[in-house]
Amino acid sequence: MADQQAQTALGTHPPALPALRWDEPPEGPVVVLLDQTRLPAEEVELVCTDVPALVAAVQTLAVRGAPLLGIAGAYGVALAAARGYDVEEAAALLAGARPTAVNLGYGVRRAAAAYRAAVEKGEGQDGGAAAALVEARALHREDAAASTAMAGHGLTLLDELLPGGGHRVLTHCNTGALVSGGEGTAFAVALEAHRRGRLRRLWVDETRPLLQGARLTTYEAARNGLAYTLLTDNAAGSLFAAGEVDAVLIGADRIAADGSVANKVGSYPLAVLARYHHVPFIVVAPLTTIDPGTPDGAAIEVEQRPGQEVTELTAPPQIAAGAPGAAVGLPVAPLGTQAYNPAFDVTPPELVTAIVTEAGVVSPVTGSAIAELCARSRQVTMS
Amino acid sequence: MADQQAQTALGTHPPALPALRWDEPPEGPVVVLLDQTRLPAEEVELVCTDVPALVAAVQTLAVRGAPLLGIAGAYGVALAAARGYDVEEAAALLAGARPTAVNLGYGVRRAAAAYRAAVEKGEGQDGGAAAALVEARALHREDAAASTAMAGHGLTLLDELLPGGGHRVLTHCNTGALVSGGEGTAFAVALEAHRRGRLRRLWVDETRPLLQGARLTTYEAARNGLAYTLLTDNAAGSLFAAGEVDAVLIGADRIAADGSVANKVGSYPLAVLARYHHVPFIVVAPLTTIDPGTPDGAAIEVEQRPGQEVTELTAPPQIAAGAPGAAVGLPVAPLGTQAYNPAFDVTPPELVTAIVTEAGVVSPVTGSAIAELCARSRQVTMS
Repeated sequence: MADQQAQTALGTHPPALPALRWDEPPEGPVVVLLDQTRLPAEEVELVCTDVPALVAAVQTLAVRGAPLLGIAGAYGVALAAARGYDVEEAAALLAGARPTAVNLGYGVRRAAAAYRAAVEKGEGQDGGAAAALVEARALHREDAAASTAMAGHGLTLLDELLPGGGHRVLTHCNTGALVSGGEGTAFAVALEAHRRGRLRRLWVDETRPLLQGARLTTYEAARNGLAYTLLTDNAAGSLFAAGEVDAVLIGADRIAADGSVANKVGSYPLAVLARYHHVPFIVVAPLTTIDPGTPDGAAIEVEQRPGQEVTELTAPPQIAAGAPGAAVGLPVAPLGTQAYNPAFDVTPPELVTAIVTEAGVVSPVTGSAIAELCARSRQVTMS
Repeated sequence: MADQQAQTALGTHPPALPALRWDEPPEGPVVVLLDQTRLPAEEVELVCTDVPALVAAVQTLAVRGAPLLGIAGAYGVALAAARGYDVEEAAALLAGARPTAVNLGYGVRRAAAAYRAAVEKGEGQDGGAAAALVEARALHREDAAASTAMAGHGLTLLDELLPGGGHRVLTHCNTGALVSGGEGTAFAVALEAHRRGRLRRLWVDETRPLLQGARLTTYEAARNGLAYTLLTDNAAGSLFAAGEVDAVLIGADRIAADGSVANKVGSYPLAVLARYHHVPFIVVAPLTTIDPGTPDGAAIEVEQRPGQEVTELTAPPQIAAGAPGAAVGLPVAPLGTQAYNPAFDVTPPELVTAIVTEAGVVSPVTGSAIAELCARSRQVTMS
């Protein structure tokens, strides 16, 4: 089950709460999430004491973003083990909570494998739980380090592609500290450019239907002092036409072996606009997002979400006073209206200028270049 | 001032109220508008007894859509004349209420010219008022006839471009009976295809930030029994990629002499997507939308609207109970967030497959072809 701890309010800038943390209060271990459905109005922590609560948090997008989903999956396995639940059942529940982000299954598998190895070595349930937690913490640290490395590689690439600096970067959805053990993926590159005085403007797509750009990326941009401007997704075309976009930076939920990129719906139209206007389209994602088991874009399963996300406006929680967590859906379209609501779209490799990972940059994007980067990275890891 | 007359509620299908009508109750003539900001939840008529009320209705988008704005402008002049207000002042107020739709100024000028001609002929204020009303009614009738003609030409074009029928048409914003003296522009073509059994699906872009697609086009599609599906604007890319769009049909707010088309923001990205996927991109608009005085796209003034339309969600009126007309803005982004909010964008002629007018189809779209169509149409009108 999940408890709630309200912390702060909109408009103040206290030290940010982490997107996810492991805690061990006297009542037993818990996974504590910053409830992203309530940002930026309220910073409320959601305390998950079991796996069903964590799965619900994943499905309602209280916790979201490909890298962070991997971390959440790993801690979820550790939580099940530490609380004495059936670890294999928990792992299956967690891995199936959302279909598109490959990182979720990756994090679950890593922690579950560590658990099993310890149990098989005769370390018992406690030993298995300890091993799963060590693995989750390692994944968490690795992801933070990957953020730092991606930010560096990404800014170097931007500087090469756009000599002279003063970058005007368009981004979609949310890819900062809220989706990562560190400072994120695409947003981390913009943040690094800002810190080095080379970001002129971050254009933030609002990202319908769930408004992750309007609610979360603006929140992270404001906290970090970036020069940013919000726009409706469909206004990006006017910015391209006016020559106001120097580069597009986005994250990814899954990258197929051929370099096809599944990311938040609305990414593909930006890729087409970027190509038409000769603007670099750059994907920033950790190696864990690359799925060699998915051969191409057609093989990527795209999550279809409920039509109500489109036919109703979900009011921010402050108007649902007295009913915390109970978002109020206000019908916009006539009753009975059906909606097409894919959560992601797929951008083919020929429209992607570069993929930036912690291990380096792939450009041009081809299956063989990606395979080579992954092989090189595995050698480094094993040596 | 404006009074309100509530009529019906969401979900029922009584005979539709007209988007705009002239009425002459004992208290004096009025322009009665269907308040489009309250659709589809409520059908409320807004009764304008003077020009400032009508200007406010134009600016808050209670009345909207290029052709209907022209009709509203003409009736507004007739209203000022009939009520004995200063007609020249009223005409200037009305013509300047919104900058992008060329039809508004056109309707105002036509009714004002009729008024002046009658006064100059010695017919006095009453004669001038009668002449302005005759002119407004003529414009209203002409626009209805233009709708019918555009629907016919548009469906013929669709059938030529897409032999075999079963058209799957994507549209943006709202272009039906709510924007016209008749059945509209782009929507009228889809409606004609539906009546002839040749519409397989109408894909309806929600059209952020004001959701004219989600609120109004769905309302018109449901009333008329079309097979329609709503989507976020950024999900259109996935439909194109999946081969689910046979043609794009949109209206226009202003067409420059070179064929550049200003229309609701989000139209240009659709034009780029359509080009990339070899899908026809068709603009449907009456001749009054063509502005020979605007040489090209760069010369089109694009209205910038308040950032709050993006940083806040405007709740449908049913939750603003007790405060009719007072839309409630719910902040989505952090306080202080700036937004880029152009109401329109401009699509260059090379991305437009065809422009459908009541006088025929221009394709390919060039300045000379448009000039020729306008000249031919003027000859017909004068002969």
